[in-house]
Amino acid sequence: MGDISATASQFVSYYYSTFDKGRNELTPLYRDVSMMTWEGTQLQGAKDIVEKLTSLPFQQVAHKVTTIDVQPSLPGVNAIIIVVTGQLLVDEETKPQQFTQLFQLVEDNGFFIYNDIFRLNYA
Amino acid sequence: MGDISATASQFVSYYYSTFDKGRNELTPLYRDVSMMTWEGTQLQGAKDIVEKLTSLPFQQVAHKVTTIDVQPSLPGVNAIIIVVTGQLLVDEETKPQQFTQLFQLVEDNGFFIYNDIFRLNYA
Repeated sequence: MGDISATASQFVSYYYSTFDKGRNELTPLYRDVSMMTWEGTQLQGAKDIVEKLTSLPFQQVAHKVTTIDVQPSLPGVNAIIIVVTGQLLVDEETKPQQFTQLFQLVEDNGFFIYNDIFRLNYA
Repeated sequence: MGDISATASQFVSYYYSTFDKGRNELTPLYRDVSMMTWEGTQLQGAKDIVEKLTSLPFQQVAHKVTTIDVQPSLPGVNAIIIVVTGQLLVDEETKPQQFTQLFQLVEDNGFFIYNDIFRLNYA
């Protein structure tokens, strides 16, 4: 993966800018084996995950990333673990919500999201 | 790992109750290969991780867990990924801080923490 900090920054920047522009374009980042837990709801596979994301009841969304931490995952797997914290502003709301999101990215002709856990913290 | 939700709950309960009673007793949960990123500071190995935790400048601490999410990690590794969110109250402070913590637990004669990422969200 080369420099995992650079990989993590690039991925996080790409993920949220794509999310904020057009959630349906996140599909190539997931595969059939991908898992997402969104506020406690478990989803599996690119199709179900992106359907969930596109069904969220807001029109406009902006993620502002506060922190990105990254570590290599276990030996023998070409994967990294990223934890993001940040703020989320939807539609005409003026008070941002805090969020935290975990990604385990696997390298395989580029990389894809294997594990994804998302939580809002109602600050 | 059997029922990973039960494993995660038991681990989380044990981890924070041990942390709040006596941080130095967390050593058996980490090994030399364990990684921790604590508020952006990278640490490796049980000794350095627990030294960091025991050096944190508070006498009393109470973790209150709000959410626990768990997923199996990659195929071929006997590991689970846990994300915790919650509140942290230290010493005489009356306003809790929000925290989020990631653990990757590996099963190997019991289990140990391979990845650990901790962040406070200043709510």
